[in-house]
Amino acid sequence: MTPNEFAATIRSIPDYPKPGILFRDITTLLGDPRAFRRAVDELVQPFAGAKIAKVAGIEARGFILGGAVAHQLSAGFVPIRKKGKLPHQTVRMAYALEYGQDEIEMHVDAVTRGEQVLLVDDLVATGGTAVGAVQLLRECGAQVVAACFVVDLPDLGGVAKLEALGVPVRSLVSFPGH
Amino acid sequence: MTPNEFAATIRSIPDYPKPGILFRDITTLLGDPRAFRRAVDELVQPFAGAKIAKVAGIEARGFILGGAVAHQLSAGFVPIRKKGKLPHQTVRMAYALEYGQDEIEMHVDAVTRGEQVLLVDDLVATGGTAVGAVQLLRECGAQVVAACFVVDLPDLGGVAKLEALGVPVRSLVSFPGH
Repeated sequence: MTPNEFAATIRSIPDYPKPGILFRDITTLLGDPRAFRRAVDELVQPFAGAKIAKVAGIEARGFILGGAVAHQLSAGFVPIRKKGKLPHQTVRMAYALEYGQDEIEMHVDAVTRGEQVLLVDDLVATGGTAVGAVQLLRECGAQVVAACFVVDLPDLGGVAKLEALGVPVRSLVSFPGH
Repeated sequence: MTPNEFAATIRSIPDYPKPGILFRDITTLLGDPRAFRRAVDELVQPFAGAKIAKVAGIEARGFILGGAVAHQLSAGFVPIRKKGKLPHQTVRMAYALEYGQDEIEMHVDAVTRGEQVLLVDDLVATGGTAVGAVQLLRECGAQVVAACFVVDLPDLGGVAKLEALGVPVRSLVSFPGH
């Protein structure tokens, strides 16, 4: 599917979650059997022969795509969650919010040193969570092969931040001007 | 894989989230490439020819398995979320907690009348959320073909409640006595 065809399956909601924000709602893409199948297949395609050991998905929408990507690559799945949700010993990383910061966590034994990991989320905007996730994975010794998103809002700078960290970014649809 | 082989990939954490509870942590199963792949394939297997239109996953761990199951069945994915997380118009359903109640939500246009839907979550215990999800899906006209879980804690009654509603239950591992 072309970027425009993917874009046509995404619902745009004005003034959500607050005035002035145009929210890109991918639940309509997920609910479209063809678009969901193609989104997963196209995200996976460059990594089919890459010996990806684990796919790390960011809570919560990144779990939907990440689970499908992991299964398709015959890789394990690693949940990266908001703090306080994982039951075993974790590593934590702060990430920037619009005002202040929050923390994400990963089980300390979720990856082993040298494993090749693909990071998956639904959308990259400012990149705060994704950059935090890359740092967590690297702290545990993983090699972050790439970060994959359905939607990229390039003007918000997240892709540039990830590339500056040496993480190639793959996305299916880009909305300039968000 | 046999139920015992699946069980061997699940971590049991005593006294989590509070004293006296033995928490069944499926993140170790998800992180094991073979176990994750087989779990998804075995959950899907009876429904391969069943014309499943949508797979509904319950936030958050049900998103991981549900995303993979939806992709494998070439179905759409429907997120069932805690209240306040979905951006478009929703339907809500209260469900029982140990003390009091909470609510889950689904987009009102996530399923259409007569669609065959498979419900997926990681674990069924008392069945409160799963029963609420079945009610939401039926309220919107969907036919709930079955509910699939990796883990079933039969002594807590969730499977019996779902079956009493006419929803067949499939699970891969059962922990009697939880």
